[in-house]
Amino acid sequence: MNVTVHGKTSHYRTVAFDVARNSVLLIDQRLLPHEFKIVAIPNYRLTASAIRDMIVRGAGAIGATAAYGLAQGMLAFGGGDLKKFIAHTDVVHQTLKEARPTAVDPVNAMAQVLKAAEVGETVAERQSLALAAAEEFAHEDVAHCSKIGHRGAKLIRNGMNILTHCNAGWLAFVDIGTATAPIYEAQQLGRNFHVFCDETRPRSQGASLTAWELAQQNISHQVIADNAAGHLMQRGKIDLVIVGSDRVLGKTGEVANKIGTYTKAVLAHRHKIPFYVAIPLSTIDWKLIKGSQIPIEERHESEVLGAWGVNEKGRREYVRVANPTSGACNPGFDVTPAELITGIITPAGIFKPGDLWKNRQKLGA
Amino acid sequence: MNVTVHGKTSHYRTVAFDVARNSVLLIDQRLLPHEFKIVAIPNYRLTASAIRDMIVRGAGAIGATAAYGLAQGMLAFGGGDLKKFIAHTDVVHQTLKEARPTAVDPVNAMAQVLKAAEVGETVAERQSLALAAAEEFAHEDVAHCSKIGHRGAKLIRNGMNILTHCNAGWLAFVDIGTATAPIYEAQQLGRNFHVFCDETRPRSQGASLTAWELAQQNISHQVIADNAAGHLMQRGKIDLVIVGSDRVLGKTGEVANKIGTYTKAVLAHRHKIPFYVAIPLSTIDWKLIKGSQIPIEERHESEVLGAWGVNEKGRREYVRVANPTSGACNPGFDVTPAELITGIITPAGIFKPGDLWKNRQKLGA
Repeated sequence: MNVTVHGKTSHYRTVAFDVARNSVLLIDQRLLPHEFKIVAIPNYRLTASAIRDMIVRGAGAIGATAAYGLAQGMLAFGGGDLKKFIAHTDVVHQTLKEARPTAVDPVNAMAQVLKAAEVGETVAERQSLALAAAEEFAHEDVAHCSKIGHRGAKLIRNGMNILTHCNAGWLAFVDIGTATAPIYEAQQLGRNFHVFCDETRPRSQGASLTAWELAQQNISHQVIADNAAGHLMQRGKIDLVIVGSDRVLGKTGEVANKIGTYTKAVLAHRHKIPFYVAIPLSTIDWKLIKGSQIPIEERHESEVLGAWGVNEKGRREYVRVANPTSGACNPGFDVTPAELITGIITPAGIFKPGDLWKNRQKLGA
Repeated sequence: MNVTVHGKTSHYRTVAFDVARNSVLLIDQRLLPHEFKIVAIPNYRLTASAIRDMIVRGAGAIGATAAYGLAQGMLAFGGGDLKKFIAHTDVVHQTLKEARPTAVDPVNAMAQVLKAAEVGETVAERQSLALAAAEEFAHEDVAHCSKIGHRGAKLIRNGMNILTHCNAGWLAFVDIGTATAPIYEAQQLGRNFHVFCDETRPRSQGASLTAWELAQQNISHQVIADNAAGHLMQRGKIDLVIVGSDRVLGKTGEVANKIGTYTKAVLAHRHKIPFYVAIPLSTIDWKLIKGSQIPIEERHESEVLGAWGVNEKGRREYVRVANPTSGACNPGFDVTPAELITGIITPAGIFKPGDLWKNRQKLGA
């Protein structure tokens, strides 16, 4: 999407690849919204660290980063010993997989790269097939988000107030995003609407990333405390909720997403407000039988006990907010049952969550 | 309650009075949880400033502070001219009333002091009656909280996990608190339990004040993001919710409290988890007919757009978290309907919210 730097507006992708330098190019999302900077990651170990340390985050973006990272690791292999190359590839694959154990996108993205590379008979062939597959993955990610935008834009009517949670925006994908795709498309169609961004504690991706994205595209919006959505719904100030997801179960329609999503779905259901989940097909997990099997990452307590921001001197700083002798419990994700979800917006159309399984052919299962 | 300073544990009240120095003693709540300091406020003008600047906050605590401040101002009058004394008392009363114009507790507390003093025939008599009435107000505040503790403690069984929102603890009253009273009493009874403190964005009173209180009393607790409660309830990790309130409608049982309370009530209701509201009788509003008439304070957007805490150098600082070009919507309170509330814990017993009106005699209407 567009970013304006020093008055100049240009188009950027969240994740790209520099073949000449064998480097993954990422927008450093830890610096946003206060600073916009592209970093070049020179090797697969640092690419895994970039995923772990959340320089890059979001389903599609870490998928593409892992795909590029795998290709990057394979390309770094010197010599022609196929056996050693395969062992090396395994290490690269494993390292990248362990960077974010809850996420399914890196797993799927890397599976595509490995499958494409397998056909190659030499190390060099496999390397070049891997890179092509990673590029294809990124290209497809953009195409899928674009389709989600076309499918979802019809849900947005003039005068609507839309709630989003966390960031399933273009920063979470290679471009356009999922939850934001219908919003960006509706803007293209000339519709007027307002977006409330849940700040999304503890990491505040809504306040920092989604608000930044929307401001860059000149979309009317306000940040709210996560505590405020219920009150706004009660007073009739929210007409539609669109969120993204880290994993949707094809068998049950359950949705794993950033902590707090379940709460918003419960509130929307009580107030009969449509609650949509926008995802690419790669987010659908066709194997798991129930949501309670999804491992919920317990993240570091410092996230809950304080906040990162910039001080009055413009310096990025962590401040401890909580009592210094108290600890925290910090589950990173939650699972929303199908009954609370109005529809799943996919590139292949909008489906009721309970209808995913019977449409699995159409949905690429 | 107990506070440990440099290894020494002593009992403190949030608000007290030093007769010898004619000073109001306050825990400086702006410094908590990072520093514990008692300040002696030497005259009524500075006592008014202490209320205005939130050195002291919380319904019962500012009521007692205003009562002491009024007595303090009256005691500072020299000579025996009753007419001049009455005019002076009017000025003191007015000054303290203007410190927090929307709060009802200082108004009620000072009315009690004035009424008690009126009976005196000399300046000296009125001065001593005023002080006795202020002491009586503080004493009653503690007695009410203590009764709430006795009534509410029976709800807490061994092994329970309890959720609280915001701070309705002893720092908000003269001692013991309301939502925390059953917790402190259950501890006295030797019960084992764990408390989850909602951080309570945007002002984070749960993370800073409630967590500090519980740590001082050695009660097992953890801070959670406001987003996490739904997930914890879904996984069976919360057995009971206790919150305070700024205003309970005697006619409908609706509860106005810190933003986010409604959300927690909706979640608790879905999960069939008991949801209790602990209040002194002075919190019940017998006049208003419906919750939608309660004015909801729209607070400054900077609260949502950033956070106050201490940096690594121990300096108190505000950091901007949100995108610098985005604004915020910041309602300070919400209203929870009676249907979501299991019971109202009062000094006079626990009542269903719909039964307040028919018990209004017992509840001092």
